[in-house]
Amino acid sequence: MLYEFKDLIDPMMLPHRRKYLYYYIVGLVDGEGCFSISIKKQEDTRFGWVIDPVFHVTQRKEKALVLYLLKKVFNCGRIIPKPGQENSMLQYVVDARRSLVEKIIPFFKKHKPIIKWEEFKNFAEIVERLERGEHKNFKGFKNLLEKAYQLSQKSSYKLNDILLEIERRVGASETIRRAPDKGEDMVQP
Amino acid sequence: MLYEFKDLIDPMMLPHRRKYLYYYIVGLVDGEGCFSISIKKQEDTRFGWVIDPVFHVTQRKEKALVLYLLKKVFNCGRIIPKPGQENSMLQYVVDARRSLVEKIIPFFKKHKPIIKWEEFKNFAEIVERLERGEHKNFKGFKNLLEKAYQLSQKSSYKLNDILLEIERRVGASETIRRAPDKGEDMVQP
Repeated sequence: MLYEFKDLIDPMMLPHRRKYLYYYIVGLVDGEGCFSISIKKQEDTRFGWVIDPVFHVTQRKEKALVLYLLKKVFNCGRIIPKPGQENSMLQYVVDARRSLVEKIIPFFKKHKPIIKWEEFKNFAEIVERLERGEHKNFKGFKNLLEKAYQLSQKSSYKLNDILLEIERRVGASETIRRAPDKGEDMVQP
Repeated sequence: MLYEFKDLIDPMMLPHRRKYLYYYIVGLVDGEGCFSISIKKQEDTRFGWVIDPVFHVTQRKEKALVLYLLKKVFNCGRIIPKPGQENSMLQYVVDARRSLVEKIIPFFKKHKPIIKWEEFKNFAEIVERLERGEHKNFKGFKNLLEKAYQLSQKSSYKLNDILLEIERRVGASETIRRAPDKGEDMVQP
């Protein structure tokens, strides 16, 4: 029995094995989870925009126990009031790239979502390309942005407007073009 | 590998063992499933009302594969357009008492939902009380109705109005009071 979660929940209420709990989590995430990619304006970055991958699972406040279970299983992330529904909903959120690369993505590659497989695959691809630093030069960032734009459910911006803005920004700033390598770590937090 | 589902899905996309798939289903149902009890007006029944337990799982049409998987695993139920959202959503529905008693309830007693445990427990209790025939006499029906009323998410009727109507109906109809036992199978479909 999974006594390791007994501070959260009576072990009798949990699957008897860790592997079973993992598949419970895949099912739950296939229903309520989201592998989200958003594109955000962020002036203090090289291109003025960031591609922001976030894994999150939402639940009503009174049922939030399951979010604490996720946090304990994945050993990363945080639980916050859901933006826009602060009074009734909580959200388990993982947005740190390190946690996505080392914990979330390997887990769901091994224990595959069924409904959200395509969503997850695209999410993992973007995170891994960011991890390889493809966003650090203009061409790579543009390619990533195009892919991310297809995936982001709704964007308040038009892709062409974003690209034009970035081109203007990059063209206008010789200092950025000549920035030393170590400075590039600042491109995306 | 679960080759038995290969007409639906590439076995590589499924958990490797049936037990894992079962826990995937618990997780999915904990997110997207519903153990629903509703109270419905139905003139051709003894008391004019029925208590209607339904297990259902809803999914977007393009992701409905998972509903066919449920249907195959539980070997009961049917898939229908979701009432009110016929164009975009499908629903896996089990409402036959036999299937609830023999398949759905034993499954979730063995593989417990975490978020929906209370909802499931109440659902199972009502179904089992109906199965014992507690709804066949006025007192039993009234007790069941009170319990069902607490659980039904929203009812367009007030409990007292329903009870008054039933009392009037039962009081007014001596023929129903004297109905032979075999006729009682008609009370609830």
